[in-house]
Amino acid sequence: MLFSITPPKRANSPERVKEIAEITVGRLADLDLDGLILYDIEDESDRNSDKRPFPYLPTLDPASFHTDHLGDWDKPTIIYRCVGKYAENDLRTWLAGSSPDILTVFVGSSSGTKPVQTSLRRAQQLHHEVSPALPLGAVVIGERHARHGDEHLRMLTKQERGCTFFISQVIYDLNETKNLVSDYFYACKDADITPRPLIFTLSLCGSPKTLEFLDWLGVEVPPWLATELRESDDPLETSRRECLAIARDLKSYCERLGMPYGFNVESVSIRKAEIEASTELAREIAALLRA
Amino acid sequence: MLFSITPPKRANSPERVKEIAEITVGRLADLDLDGLILYDIEDESDRNSDKRPFPYLPTLDPASFHTDHLGDWDKPTIIYRCVGKYAENDLRTWLAGSSPDILTVFVGSSSGTKPVQTSLRRAQQLHHEVSPALPLGAVVIGERHARHGDEHLRMLTKQERGCTFFISQVIYDLNETKNLVSDYFYACKDADITPRPLIFTLSLCGSPKTLEFLDWLGVEVPPWLATELRESDDPLETSRRECLAIARDLKSYCERLGMPYGFNVESVSIRKAEIEASTELAREIAALLRA
Repeated sequence: MLFSITPPKRANSPERVKEIAEITVGRLADLDLDGLILYDIEDESDRNSDKRPFPYLPTLDPASFHTDHLGDWDKPTIIYRCVGKYAENDLRTWLAGSSPDILTVFVGSSSGTKPVQTSLRRAQQLHHEVSPALPLGAVVIGERHARHGDEHLRMLTKQERGCTFFISQVIYDLNETKNLVSDYFYACKDADITPRPLIFTLSLCGSPKTLEFLDWLGVEVPPWLATELRESDDPLETSRRECLAIARDLKSYCERLGMPYGFNVESVSIRKAEIEASTELAREIAALLRA
Repeated sequence: MLFSITPPKRANSPERVKEIAEITVGRLADLDLDGLILYDIEDESDRNSDKRPFPYLPTLDPASFHTDHLGDWDKPTIIYRCVGKYAENDLRTWLAGSSPDILTVFVGSSSGTKPVQTSLRRAQQLHHEVSPALPLGAVVIGERHARHGDEHLRMLTKQERGCTFFISQVIYDLNETKNLVSDYFYACKDADITPRPLIFTLSLCGSPKTLEFLDWLGVEVPPWLATELRESDDPLETSRRECLAIARDLKSYCERLGMPYGFNVESVSIRKAEIEASTELAREIAALLRA
């Protein structure tokens, strides 16, 4: 059971960053979490020429934020790395210095045309050379599976390259997610490979603007649900009900299969009501997982 | 809450037909049904050149079977008519003579190339001319909506042409079914038209051969579920669980929307275990509906 946050904006004063960190740790300590994810944000405007519904603002480096401000967080932390942002040497130094309560997830470029300093493949090699004991995860995109049907093969390739767990992008399409889990699980079975844990990411959608942002991010919300969210007097409650239904269904499906899984709650929205409700959602999903 | 059966094969002796009818009525009387559907079967080999997993065998005319053998069935009966099979005059005579406990569903040709004696459009006109008080239903195909996105518009057209209710083909894709319901419901709302009841048809799948037959019939079973059914030690129980889950989900979705709905249980399989289990499924779904 994971919860993910984006480090504070770089524009914040050091005092404000400290304050945000304290509030965050206080809020998270109260949840029954196994770990915290710190996202690494990059400007993805190259991936999508449509206007970004929430503005892109540079954020603090997740590793520095963790080291400097999350000393009170005493559970594992998964630090995302958009590897294309970093020079090989910087990545190498960071990998060499990572501490035992840290895990990482490498994220490839958001588009094929974007110039990168380090490719995903190269970053995976560095991990193998410098710090193979550091648990390395990979991102899984159900929408890519719906389009190309090969996301499970990408997972197997990433596994060969040292990844030991997977974290999905935000999920709203239960059916496509189950298709991916099924293909991955049976591909592992056929190849006599142990399937690695897949963590399903859930995020609430409390307003039409958040729905627009999910769409901008490439998250496919089934048409009936997008309509229901748009028509709802209380989209936050509607999406809470759906996220819980998705979680219950995936839990029962994975347990039937024998597929290792977990959940991650994030808030793609920066609105206070949605962030607070995502804490509540994490509490409910943790309870579901422990049940 | 409906249950549907196919009339006995024409090859049966009159004694055997009588016996089948008695067993059927006895079994159905025990269920909490609002009506019975009698299918009209035609050879659809023109629609699909693949080998039909269960052989096509001519069956008794559903109206004759009802008149001659279902006297003990005291609830409404919905008689399907594959209208292309009938000469205009035969259809006209039947429409003129139908009794008050009868409803009908007109089914169009199974392919665009098949020669028909009466087109669906012409049959609808005959209904309007001869027997407009006879409740007329239409078939709804979620898979067509998934491909072309216009099944809700077809429903509205059929409604203009006298249809007052809809019955789906067998449903296994919950997501696509909800997309269709959503599009139909909001199209009615936009046009200020009262949505008509949509009856969702469920059928169990107790063996790989039945799964093959569902595929032959054009029913899209989500890939993860097709795999689960194939891998299951007890596919009948697996499909029962899924059919119930689909029914619960559609019930709650339609009630949230304010969409009138119902359920129909059929058995696409001719195997005894599957037919008996479908009676049990109807009992459980009736209980769900009355809850």
